[in-house]
Amino acid sequence: VEAGEEAAVHELADDLHEADLGALLVALDPDLRVPLIRLMGPAFDFAALTEMDDNIREEILAHFSPRTVAEGVRELESDDALTILEDFDAKEQAEILQALPPVDRAALRRCLDYPDNAAGRLMQTTVVTAPPFWTAGQAIDIMRETDEEDLPDSFFEIFIVDPAHRFLGNVFLDTLMRARSSALLEDIMERDRRRVVVTEDRGEVARIFQRYNLISVPVVDEAERLVGVITIDDIVDVIQEETDADLRALGGVSEEEELSDTVWWTARGRFLWLFVNLLTAFIASSVLGLFEEQMQKMVALAVLAPIVASQGGNAATQTMTVVVRALATRELSRANAWRVIRRELAVGIVNGLAFGLMTGIVSGYWFSLPGIGVVIALAMLINLAAGALGGILIPQTLAHFKIDPAVSSGAFVTTVTDVVGFFSFLGIATLWFKLG
Amino acid sequence: VEAGEEAAVHELADDLHEADLGALLVALDPDLRVPLIRLMGPAFDFAALTEMDDNIREEILAHFSPRTVAEGVRELESDDALTILEDFDAKEQAEILQALPPVDRAALRRCLDYPDNAAGRLMQTTVVTAPPFWTAGQAIDIMRETDEEDLPDSFFEIFIVDPAHRFLGNVFLDTLMRARSSALLEDIMERDRRRVVVTEDRGEVARIFQRYNLISVPVVDEAERLVGVITIDDIVDVIQEETDADLRALGGVSEEEELSDTVWWTARGRFLWLFVNLLTAFIASSVLGLFEEQMQKMVALAVLAPIVASQGGNAATQTMTVVVRALATRELSRANAWRVIRRELAVGIVNGLAFGLMTGIVSGYWFSLPGIGVVIALAMLINLAAGALGGILIPQTLAHFKIDPAVSSGAFVTTVTDVVGFFSFLGIATLWFKLG
Repeated sequence: VEAGEEAAVHELADDLHEADLGALLVALDPDLRVPLIRLMGPAFDFAALTEMDDNIREEILAHFSPRTVAEGVRELESDDALTILEDFDAKEQAEILQALPPVDRAALRRCLDYPDNAAGRLMQTTVVTAPPFWTAGQAIDIMRETDEEDLPDSFFEIFIVDPAHRFLGNVFLDTLMRARSSALLEDIMERDRRRVVVTEDRGEVARIFQRYNLISVPVVDEAERLVGVITIDDIVDVIQEETDADLRALGGVSEEEELSDTVWWTARGRFLWLFVNLLTAFIASSVLGLFEEQMQKMVALAVLAPIVASQGGNAATQTMTVVVRALATRELSRANAWRVIRRELAVGIVNGLAFGLMTGIVSGYWFSLPGIGVVIALAMLINLAAGALGGILIPQTLAHFKIDPAVSSGAFVTTVTDVVGFFSFLGIATLWFKLG
Repeated sequence: VEAGEEAAVHELADDLHEADLGALLVALDPDLRVPLIRLMGPAFDFAALTEMDDNIREEILAHFSPRTVAEGVRELESDDALTILEDFDAKEQAEILQALPPVDRAALRRCLDYPDNAAGRLMQTTVVTAPPFWTAGQAIDIMRETDEEDLPDSFFEIFIVDPAHRFLGNVFLDTLMRARSSALLEDIMERDRRRVVVTEDRGEVARIFQRYNLISVPVVDEAERLVGVITIDDIVDVIQEETDADLRALGGVSEEEELSDTVWWTARGRFLWLFVNLLTAFIASSVLGLFEEQMQKMVALAVLAPIVASQGGNAATQTMTVVVRALATRELSRANAWRVIRRELAVGIVNGLAFGLMTGIVSGYWFSLPGIGVVIALAMLINLAAGALGGILIPQTLAHFKIDPAVSSGAFVTTVTDVVGFFSFLGIATLWFKLG
């Protein structure tokens, strides 16, 4: 690219799949990305831009005029075009839309009006429709004669609509092929095909796809009119994003953080979670502060207290991890809540006994003081049971109040185990050794 | 069900989608599951059994004879049949296979021979094939005349193979429909269609689907012979499982744990992670033990030390969460490793300065001792920088040695932040206040 060897670049990049071209651009020195795209000229597939972090895409797109972007966007499926349009502000969006053919413009403008998380943002608006009174043979013939431009790049089914474009049913291509030529579409169509409303949340759409193993789903508006289709390749990313969002939330990282973010932006994004944790750490330490006198008399207490707190925190995190995911996948609901609470508490007690025993023996030997072994064993049992209860009740309560349990459970749960851990260990020690 | 009202049950359950029937069975009192299935008789769709936890499926299947299972499995696509067969031991598998028609038996037996995580376990073996010299019209006509039984329930493409069944290319149904009747399949087929080898790891197959937005992929053996097809609905679950496995691993929970596991089994599964953490907690406490004398002289140190350790642990967990996912998605590779390490270190230092300052001020006021504020601020900065480095270098090192970073990073990373946190805080305090 640096040498501007146009022919070599063409040869290398023209045959690449859009995903590979996208990956190539990302791997490239940032300063060479735009020149490469310019060198490729009209051969550059704008779909490659949908295969990278938002930051990098925005950075690249900033170098091109609305007219060039419009040229590129024109060739794309409407869902990919939307991804690119979303990167521009309202004024630039208008300029790009202006440079598009009126039909595309209207469809894209309508999509941009849907909320960010709506099904309408994921759908493709070009669909193949037919009236119910056509025969299978007619449908195939008409498709053969239709201009390539007016058909989607690929499709798996045709949708049967009435004159008002209301959705009646669908016919998969394999059904269409197997049917007699003279069969009426209304006789072979699937009438009770699952559909989604255009304003449905994308997470909900993803769950429908997963639950019913769908490949595509028609999208209708409030009046049951067909407005588009969502195919599973667009949903796969949503499914992964939802799980990934839970994973990141549990790790205290924002859903939006990307590997290409700047240091400053990343640090800012992580600050809030660390700040909340600092507050909870001070709460936990203030419990330690209550027992200053006892720790001064018996410094072994200061050495061992963190073990009780940390073991409780880890057990609680295990429970919380399972519970947060079970809530997200709807595996855990009111129907089985009690059963799961009882189970987690029992698991906490079983492991509390096991680890209480081990920790007690080791600690008793370490400080040559059997009493401290008994004290830490009891505290460990109490804290693991408390951790189990906290690990399940806190996410459930948050979910009940419509707060995302993945984002907010962690801080509460570890506060519980730190406070209960320190308090039970030092409290029991005070009583046992009469340190009060 | 209890009243044995057969007609009512039929009316209620017959029209249910397999996924809803599966969910109904799971929600039902365990004692009523088998009677319901018996009541439904041959109307029961065995595909419903693939929509639940392994435990529940195994429990249900234990009540049915190999002959009944064989009857049910017969109606299924080969990938669903495989899921059910996997629940039986070798002897029972043989009995069920014996009761199946020879063609199905051979195909299923071959699939069972592939390793658990291989592409071969996910594929459907019934595919539509055609020789390259057929025309589009011929292909459609022949499909129309083929017995329904010999075609897959649904399909999106036909595969072109040579006489030795070697894969030559594919034609999507929409392409087939758009083509002229007289077009030869070899002229309209896609020759460079991405394919996977039957022994390929399922995680790798999932990544190929995601990267190239595929709907289906042909599966070939070592000799390039077509053996089946994997469709995306089977991969969606794999994609989610892979992310979910990382999430669980980071939370210290086994990938296999299910909500329906017994208390004993769950406690056992979580024991190992807690045991490793107990060891690391003792290591951290032994660092505290080195400073017993200092803590006795100045008990504020014992109160504040856990704050430094916990804040470092949380910052390190943030970095680790991002790094583990970036390694899994291949976003982080040798090419950008240094850039990401520098970025994480910088983020650690920025937040280290911010939280050092805050913690220093609060601690100084709390104990009316400005010196302790300075000490904790320095220790916090050191520990957040160390946490950032640990959070990235440990998962990278583990990945380099082909150890799953999601499973094993956590324990190492928090050991680093606990040890560095305690050591730097108490070490600096010893020097600052001349407590040595």
